[in-house]
Amino acid sequence: MIKLDFAKDEHGLLPAIVQDYQTGEVLMLAYINRQAWDKTLETGKAHYWSRSRACLWLKGETSGHVQIIKEILVDCDQDTVVYKVEQLGGAACHTGYRSCFYRKVDGNRLVVDAQERLFDPETVYGLK
Amino acid sequence: MIKLDFAKDEHGLLPAIVQDYQTGEVLMLAYINRQAWDKTLETGKAHYWSRSRACLWLKGETSGHVQIIKEILVDCDQDTVVYKVEQLGGAACHTGYRSCFYRKVDGNRLVVDAQERLFDPETVYGLK
Repeated sequence: MIKLDFAKDEHGLLPAIVQDYQTGEVLMLAYINRQAWDKTLETGKAHYWSRSRACLWLKGETSGHVQIIKEILVDCDQDTVVYKVEQLGGAACHTGYRSCFYRKVDGNRLVVDAQERLFDPETVYGLK
Repeated sequence: MIKLDFAKDEHGLLPAIVQDYQTGEVLMLAYINRQAWDKTLETGKAHYWSRSRACLWLKGETSGHVQIIKEILVDCDQDTVVYKVEQLGGAACHTGYRSCFYRKVDGNRLVVDAQERLFDPETVYGLK
């Protein structure tokens, strides 16, 4: 098995950068622990550790917007990974944007960077 | 000024994903604190917080391989950023590879993913 350096972080969490496997666009960043890493390798679907809910998280378990793993890259220190994925449903962000990085720095402001919302969060998650 | 949610992390550190501004290749991930963020915005050169050396780190201060900021993206939660950069010297990784993510998962192994070393670390850093 491929060992990552989970011991490097006091909570055993490492960042996973999620990239669209075709366009290279960075879609999101989330955290993995050993369990999430093992589940991802085993199932071919991106799993993370939800820091807010403190539980294993299959991305898309609520929305259906599962991330199919196409390739995984590991960095020099084995403490960060890149998941290259096919994003089902088109949008990785819970706000309905394709990428969580839908804003860019423009002087002293953040401006939305030419993305349209692909879904209405209220419909998908029941958020108000 | 653009506020990031540094309070989210107990050490005041947030991840910065570094992407080649032309190819979209993910080059590395490093951490920023408020000081590194301010310095990056002020100078247009990527600054980080070195966790191992516990100091502000201008990427390239030793090697000359400075990262010129072309664009900065900020995520939905304002706790992660993407730096789109021009990587001077061509290689972001201290091992001499273009990207720190020079290996990919291949079954139960990690294999080098078609990258050549662009420099010899011993020459640049005096590493043995």
